[in-house]
Amino acid sequence: MRAVDVIAKKRDGGRLTKEEIAFFVDGYTRGTIPDYQAAAWLMAVLLKGMTWEETTDLTMAMVASGRTLSLGAVAPVVADKHSTGGVGDKTTLVVGPLVAAAGLPVAKMSGRGLGFTGGTLDKLESIPGFRVDLSVEQFLAQVARVGLVVAGQSAELAPADGKLYALRDVTATVPSIPLIASSIMSKKIAAGADVIVLDVKVGSGAFMKTLESARELARLMVQVGRGVGRRVLAVLTNMDQPLGDAVGNALEVKEAIDTLWGRGPQDFDEHCRVLAAHMLVLGGRAGSAADAAAMVAEALASGRARRKFAEFVEAQGGDVRVVESPEAVLPRAPYVAAVGAPRGGYIREIDAERVGLATVTLGAGRERKGEPVDPRVGVVLHRKVGARVEAGEPLFTVHAADEGSWQAAAQQVLGAYAWSDEPVAPPPLVFEVIE
Amino acid sequence: MRAVDVIAKKRDGGRLTKEEIAFFVDGYTRGTIPDYQAAAWLMAVLLKGMTWEETTDLTMAMVASGRTLSLGAVAPVVADKHSTGGVGDKTTLVVGPLVAAAGLPVAKMSGRGLGFTGGTLDKLESIPGFRVDLSVEQFLAQVARVGLVVAGQSAELAPADGKLYALRDVTATVPSIPLIASSIMSKKIAAGADVIVLDVKVGSGAFMKTLESARELARLMVQVGRGVGRRVLAVLTNMDQPLGDAVGNALEVKEAIDTLWGRGPQDFDEHCRVLAAHMLVLGGRAGSAADAAAMVAEALASGRARRKFAEFVEAQGGDVRVVESPEAVLPRAPYVAAVGAPRGGYIREIDAERVGLATVTLGAGRERKGEPVDPRVGVVLHRKVGARVEAGEPLFTVHAADEGSWQAAAQQVLGAYAWSDEPVAPPPLVFEVIE
Repeated sequence: MRAVDVIAKKRDGGRLTKEEIAFFVDGYTRGTIPDYQAAAWLMAVLLKGMTWEETTDLTMAMVASGRTLSLGAVAPVVADKHSTGGVGDKTTLVVGPLVAAAGLPVAKMSGRGLGFTGGTLDKLESIPGFRVDLSVEQFLAQVARVGLVVAGQSAELAPADGKLYALRDVTATVPSIPLIASSIMSKKIAAGADVIVLDVKVGSGAFMKTLESARELARLMVQVGRGVGRRVLAVLTNMDQPLGDAVGNALEVKEAIDTLWGRGPQDFDEHCRVLAAHMLVLGGRAGSAADAAAMVAEALASGRARRKFAEFVEAQGGDVRVVESPEAVLPRAPYVAAVGAPRGGYIREIDAERVGLATVTLGAGRERKGEPVDPRVGVVLHRKVGARVEAGEPLFTVHAADEGSWQAAAQQVLGAYAWSDEPVAPPPLVFEVIE
Repeated sequence: MRAVDVIAKKRDGGRLTKEEIAFFVDGYTRGTIPDYQAAAWLMAVLLKGMTWEETTDLTMAMVASGRTLSLGAVAPVVADKHSTGGVGDKTTLVVGPLVAAAGLPVAKMSGRGLGFTGGTLDKLESIPGFRVDLSVEQFLAQVARVGLVVAGQSAELAPADGKLYALRDVTATVPSIPLIASSIMSKKIAAGADVIVLDVKVGSGAFMKTLESARELARLMVQVGRGVGRRVLAVLTNMDQPLGDAVGNALEVKEAIDTLWGRGPQDFDEHCRVLAAHMLVLGGRAGSAADAAAMVAEALASGRARRKFAEFVEAQGGDVRVVESPEAVLPRAPYVAAVGAPRGGYIREIDAERVGLATVTLGAGRERKGEPVDPRVGVVLHRKVGARVEAGEPLFTVHAADEGSWQAAAQQVLGAYAWSDEPVAPPPLVFEVIE
């Protein structure tokens, strides 16, 4: 088999066989197929597409490039969740403890933020002492002991995906639904969870800007996962405005903790309950959606979810006092001030991508991999889409490292708002469930 | 400007600006844009296409990557011809002397054969002593002195094309009409001729298998050349069966010399007269097609074309006795025998690609660049499409280095024939002229 023939077949719109895909992925991982052939192949895949069978074969070829975790020795059923990334998305910090507290272990490898979207690892690292660089053995041991672990993606799992992703990043071949689906699913499948709930974000603050593209991605990931024997479900959720009120690492940790105390923002609280309930049903812990919702409510009201979070923070070296006194433990920005509404009226839109970019201006996010982030800074929204606001009332608060970045970010966030004189209905949280 | 943004723009079907194309070609030539980004870009260009303006900008960016010859100091008007490659295509060896003998200097840089198509340089090198590796200065001096030169492509001209072509070859991005057009035209424009006649081959023995794709390529090359001030015309010619009777290096040189003596195969003779006449009209040496045809006939009948060929062979170090006694001077294969017709009837088809591949089997061509070729071997057809043949009469003769390759090639050539019991019209030589 020759790489150039596999490229030509995809260029001409052909369906690649399992053997051809395995040959290509294996050759690229081992270095016998050079970057330039992989780059031409990726562009052909992006422009000509892949069937779900091809996407499954690509996913499994990437899984085969590295280590695969067996969680069966650790617990009978283990759950994982994945979000395609958004602004203010601290969901894992609440859903993980909720599900684990309800008796379904959660084992998640996560990523860092890039561009306008934040990353769970960066958020967790704003808790003093918190470590995300666990070995695979530490990861497995913590699932068994605590029932909840969130660590950085291990380089031992699906290394082909890491190598291909780096190439996609510099060859304009990121936005391909089959390539995105196989990249996500290869890491999820290699990490070994039986139950995988995918939170596919749709809207201005998400990679998928339209419901159609998000639905296509969700369907493909569900098909791929089911095809290889995993229980998978995808929830399409709204990312037109930021999720919850807080955007920024320490600010989002505080908001997650507030939510575990039962005093989080309504939209974020609801979002976490929905995802957690789906995980419990899919994992066989609840017989119905209603049962699952009741289990989630009980885990929150009883404080068991909060205690599970504390146990998890402690297991990973974090300062556990954060649960009782987040403001005292988390790093705080020196320049904090609110911005008043420039006019009265109804909030029609808060463009999530603009808010995300404003937090990058503040230093909460990074433009390039490997750059440090400032855990202290960010934005807290006081009113969301649909709210009636009086001119001059506090609209949002900017937490900045200095006055210059405060000014710049405040202007950016103001530019994210659109207004209406007529009442505006709050947007839906969940568009649909793909299963 | 970032390479990844230029790739993304083409991926999304955008039209690249002159600046974007120049940035990309220049960066790739100087090594600041790596192979993998160029590979992704080439695949996007292949699949999304380019307008003629973009193709012109790409052509001129490749021209700008190296030296450009000024032929104005050598002669007021200089002509060049280019064939897109076929089987049995020794046209340059006859058209060059014809046109030069009629007073229009011809300066051509040429290529080597690859795959099933032969190359003019390989053919010329079968003349003992003939040198094709001239310096640019030798090339220019010979145009001035002899009025006819055929040399290998100088690496000083359009080096970006050489680098991009090598990458296209290994990334399945060769068959793109804008990329083919800009590759050909960048070399022709850098070589400096005012008058460029393109012989675009169509059929089984050509890269363009259909009239539509050949027409598209021809139109694009004519537009690009005219857009930068050259006089350009393209002739779409038939390559369903080999051109002339001989296929193989020394055998084709002998056939070209026979044609210059007025005893060449009818189809090849006609083909050369048509192309030569177009060059003379386009170059302003003849006022009409009829005048040009008369000038060509005179150059042949008077022996002036033959003497120009001799002068050209001598100037490039070849054994000039080849003109009088080709069989005595050219190398000859040891195993030569004819194959009889397996049946009677009319020849419906002689698949040019199969005949070309049979000569590769014999050693006349190469599968990979840099491999040597055997000048002695090849195939001579005795009857062409449309002929009525009796079973057993000599159909073709195979010239081989040994009996094994003779047998293999004889079988391959037999497989190239298709037969009919009904009369078959000889195929047209020229489909159309694009100007």
